[in-house]
Amino acid sequence: MTAVDFEGFVERLATVAGEAVMPFFRTMIGVEDKGGLGKFDPVTAADRAGESAMRQLIKSTFPGHGIVGEEFGSENESAEYVWVLDPIDGTRGFITGLPTWGTLIGLLKGGVPVYGTMSQPFTKERFFGDGGSARCRGPHGERKLRTRACARLEDATLSSTSPRLFSGGDLVAFEALEDRTRHTRFGGDCYAYCMLAAGQIDLVVEVGLKPYDIVALIPVIEGAGGVITDWEGGPAAAGGRVIAAGDRRIHAAAMDLLRSAGA
Amino acid sequence: MTAVDFEGFVERLATVAGEAVMPFFRTMIGVEDKGGLGKFDPVTAADRAGESAMRQLIKSTFPGHGIVGEEFGSENESAEYVWVLDPIDGTRGFITGLPTWGTLIGLLKGGVPVYGTMSQPFTKERFFGDGGSARCRGPHGERKLRTRACARLEDATLSSTSPRLFSGGDLVAFEALEDRTRHTRFGGDCYAYCMLAAGQIDLVVEVGLKPYDIVALIPVIEGAGGVITDWEGGPAAAGGRVIAAGDRRIHAAAMDLLRSAGA
Repeated sequence: MTAVDFEGFVERLATVAGEAVMPFFRTMIGVEDKGGLGKFDPVTAADRAGESAMRQLIKSTFPGHGIVGEEFGSENESAEYVWVLDPIDGTRGFITGLPTWGTLIGLLKGGVPVYGTMSQPFTKERFFGDGGSARCRGPHGERKLRTRACARLEDATLSSTSPRLFSGGDLVAFEALEDRTRHTRFGGDCYAYCMLAAGQIDLVVEVGLKPYDIVALIPVIEGAGGVITDWEGGPAAAGGRVIAAGDRRIHAAAMDLLRSAGA
Repeated sequence: MTAVDFEGFVERLATVAGEAVMPFFRTMIGVEDKGGLGKFDPVTAADRAGESAMRQLIKSTFPGHGIVGEEFGSENESAEYVWVLDPIDGTRGFITGLPTWGTLIGLLKGGVPVYGTMSQPFTKERFFGDGGSARCRGPHGERKLRTRACARLEDATLSSTSPRLFSGGDLVAFEALEDRTRHTRFGGDCYAYCMLAAGQIDLVVEVGLKPYDIVALIPVIEGAGGVITDWEGGPAAAGGRVIAAGDRRIHAAAMDLLRSAGA
């Protein structure tokens, strides 16, 4: 894969996913419940259509690559290159019509995230990162992404998708972080990580993530100068409890606070 | 005011507000704290620029009309026609870069909301309503807005800007409603009311609203077939505790539940 081929290919993946997903946005078609007896876990026909389109394009272009996806599981996961796909990250935002969801396309090389894209086909924005740099392109132009400096938790803007996703000691820890930070914004989905990369948000803290929720965002955040790990400071690519920060000083401070406040 | 003049005028108001506000979106300029010693209450130079632009246009076009605005207070409030303005509803969304905020432009005639607009200048969407009908126009086309049917709270999608805005008995009541409804989405700002009008959300429940947070949205919601009142079933135009529903059956059920669960 040359660099040029590769970027063009990722753009095509984002395009086929967007074309598959958008006909379902702000319509009442295809909302199902895959959660069984438990809490509502929305998944739409759009999710499946988007992932199918991306899988087909990957398989026909790079038959040796592996794929991990939200809807259709894993194949060839031990390949050198593995694509990690979430056609609609933020399904709840999607079904409520809010433009905070996105298509996540990540690439692992030897298990390490090396390239990531978040594509928002309603606003027509795309965020890209390779760990060394990151950029955004949309109807309002193209720009380099840079996180902003923020030295103290007291000055930080915190974001998370919903406080209802935390429980037990994690909830205690998250609420302690809320109390310390300047203000909190809920409801961001993958868009919040991109706004952290853009220097609009200082901290994103979440729990219960799957690899396909986060792999694509790691090279964007790191490329913009941010830090993203699990709550113990290890790699975030496996998902679980994740903390992203624009400035490594508040990354360290937030980890300390989560550790001391939580269970 | 003929109907044609009027709609053109509202469009011009939305345009001048958007032009004043957008240079500040996703920049780090002008974020201030007007909350003094208390909790952070973000307000930006954009808010002031947007409201000034709208006030100037209203005064030069309709010098006899009154104006109520978030930033510069009230003037001529006893006039037959009073404009109710919020240049950036959802300041927290605005400063975090999320496209869920909007410019709210409402018109009262004899104290009753008769026309309302929500303009989102980043996505270039505008939502309009006159209590009898409502529509949305944007890059993806123009459509009539209609709320969706939802007979039972158990099937309802609930939205609110943040659970942290509730306290005491209101919080107890809101959490009881969360438990009963199918799922909850936080972080919608004025965009959530427009998605209720568009049939994507069933209930929006909030507290502590000011008239300029809600007046413009009332004709949109009612024009789309929805119901919006305070928690006691009275007019929502004064703000405070507000409940909006796409279907009057869950409006009644939610009011009952809030009343029985709360303080």
